[in-house]
Amino acid sequence: MADVRTTPLFHRLAIIGHGLIGSSISRAVRQAGTLAAHVAVADSDAAYLDRSRALDIADSVHADPQAAVKDADCVVLCTPVGTYGSLAAQLAPLLQPGTILTDVGSIKRIVTAEIAPHVPAGVHLIPGHPLAGTEKSGPDAGFAELFEGRYWILTPPPDCDPAAIERLASLWREIGAIVEIMDEDYHDKVLALTSHLPHLISYTIVGTATDLEEHMKQDVIRFAASGFRDFTRLAGSNPVMWRDVFLNNREAVLEMLQRFQEDLTYLQRAIRWGDGETLEKLFTRTREIRRGVIDAKQDIPPQPKDLPPEQS
Amino acid sequence: MADVRTTPLFHRLAIIGHGLIGSSISRAVRQAGTLAAHVAVADSDAAYLDRSRALDIADSVHADPQAAVKDADCVVLCTPVGTYGSLAAQLAPLLQPGTILTDVGSIKRIVTAEIAPHVPAGVHLIPGHPLAGTEKSGPDAGFAELFEGRYWILTPPPDCDPAAIERLASLWREIGAIVEIMDEDYHDKVLALTSHLPHLISYTIVGTATDLEEHMKQDVIRFAASGFRDFTRLAGSNPVMWRDVFLNNREAVLEMLQRFQEDLTYLQRAIRWGDGETLEKLFTRTREIRRGVIDAKQDIPPQPKDLPPEQS
Repeated sequence: MADVRTTPLFHRLAIIGHGLIGSSISRAVRQAGTLAAHVAVADSDAAYLDRSRALDIADSVHADPQAAVKDADCVVLCTPVGTYGSLAAQLAPLLQPGTILTDVGSIKRIVTAEIAPHVPAGVHLIPGHPLAGTEKSGPDAGFAELFEGRYWILTPPPDCDPAAIERLASLWREIGAIVEIMDEDYHDKVLALTSHLPHLISYTIVGTATDLEEHMKQDVIRFAASGFRDFTRLAGSNPVMWRDVFLNNREAVLEMLQRFQEDLTYLQRAIRWGDGETLEKLFTRTREIRRGVIDAKQDIPPQPKDLPPEQS
Repeated sequence: MADVRTTPLFHRLAIIGHGLIGSSISRAVRQAGTLAAHVAVADSDAAYLDRSRALDIADSVHADPQAAVKDADCVVLCTPVGTYGSLAAQLAPLLQPGTILTDVGSIKRIVTAEIAPHVPAGVHLIPGHPLAGTEKSGPDAGFAELFEGRYWILTPPPDCDPAAIERLASLWREIGAIVEIMDEDYHDKVLALTSHLPHLISYTIVGTATDLEEHMKQDVIRFAASGFRDFTRLAGSNPVMWRDVFLNNREAVLEMLQRFQEDLTYLQRAIRWGDGETLEKLFTRTREIRRGVIDAKQDIPPQPKDLPPEQS
């Protein structure tokens, strides 16, 4: 946390899409006290709006995103990336010069492609991606501590105003995140391997299970061992969000998938021919990466302070 | 827990292999008080023996497994399944009639194949498999609560003595497990999907990451997002144990792998051709399985009472 702040960093923070990430941001910003004088949220789902009001985690709640962004000096898109084009066309022209427009999507090149054409001169478009989340959806799933100690990647275009980047970085730092600046294509490639491919594989294997004969399917669920259990968690994530990720990060995902398939075929062959040496060699080599992940302190899933993890 | 027990269920419980599972059993049995009058443990690793003595979690600690099983009325093999043949040849002839011989291996058909030929008449061979574990190894990694609320599958041969099965089931029930009886081939098929395939895939994808150029590899570790993080945990499991699982459950693993590959290719094609409907349909369908896993209360990883999860 920075020194105690006397004036708000933003006058009006507009959060478009109030699900897991959006509602975690509004909670965290409100909890921090002086980051934004007003937190306005919008969602197209009436049930989400009702819950957002009932939870009292925003200063104003809007069905109309145009009403939420009016006079905002920071706008955060927290909707599936498939909505970016139409949202940008609708909202960007309303923004005043100096306003920061950012997002939290899992892929970044698309932000520039879909949103930039609509952005008026003087508005700072700074795509972003917090590496934080759970498999849950909706405003009830959010919590203020979601971003603590997590990376928040920003992929500003090369000509972006450094002062605007620093202002946005301060916002995310003050709710606990570690901000990193990165090239958008590089981001999409790294995430294709660390996040998109694991989700695709999890959806696949859980899908494979749903096609088993009924008796065995029930036992697969009953005796879900370590491994399958983790995969079902990933495969329980928001379907629309993930559909959009795969449709919009196609090249990077297909490239990593190709590498993965080759490596899997190599192990498949080792199993078929009883080549224990090849198996043990790889199984030992992978431990180095695990050690790195633990050292980077990214091994513990985020969790709210007052709830046990993974209850539902 | 059953009614308070006045006489021990076993006079001498011998645990061969004192790693994560073996040391969790000895802890749990000693903590339960009256389950075994004496807990003897053996391991071929001198460092494991030293730690087992220092932790004071067994009544006697042996380098020689023959010394541990002498006069035992229950013997539990907790070593990698690749050791079963030679261990059985060495130990089974020493067992007295009435003794129960069991194991905790992840595959079950091999137990009958490798061990049964060595077992003298009157000794009860009852293969077993607790669906519990973490990715850690060694006697320091064990904890008494590992089996609480977890399934413990027994795959006794059709002609096995029901009284012996019930006696062994009581032992595992009294340390918190839910005992299920199952056919060995069926067990190996279900576990191929729920455990073996997820581990194989995790080893593969983490292996794919180790082959990236150094700069990207470091960023994959640093920005390990949800997904990859879980996969590195599975890929940090004991390499020798998993080598043996794949070598000895070849047919079931290859069959499930084949199904998985077909399903993955189907999704790959949907991504390549931008078929969002197919993606969303599958991503929605998999949620049903997640719900089932949560309802079966198998979604929360086991953890020791006095330690936060996944610290190391």
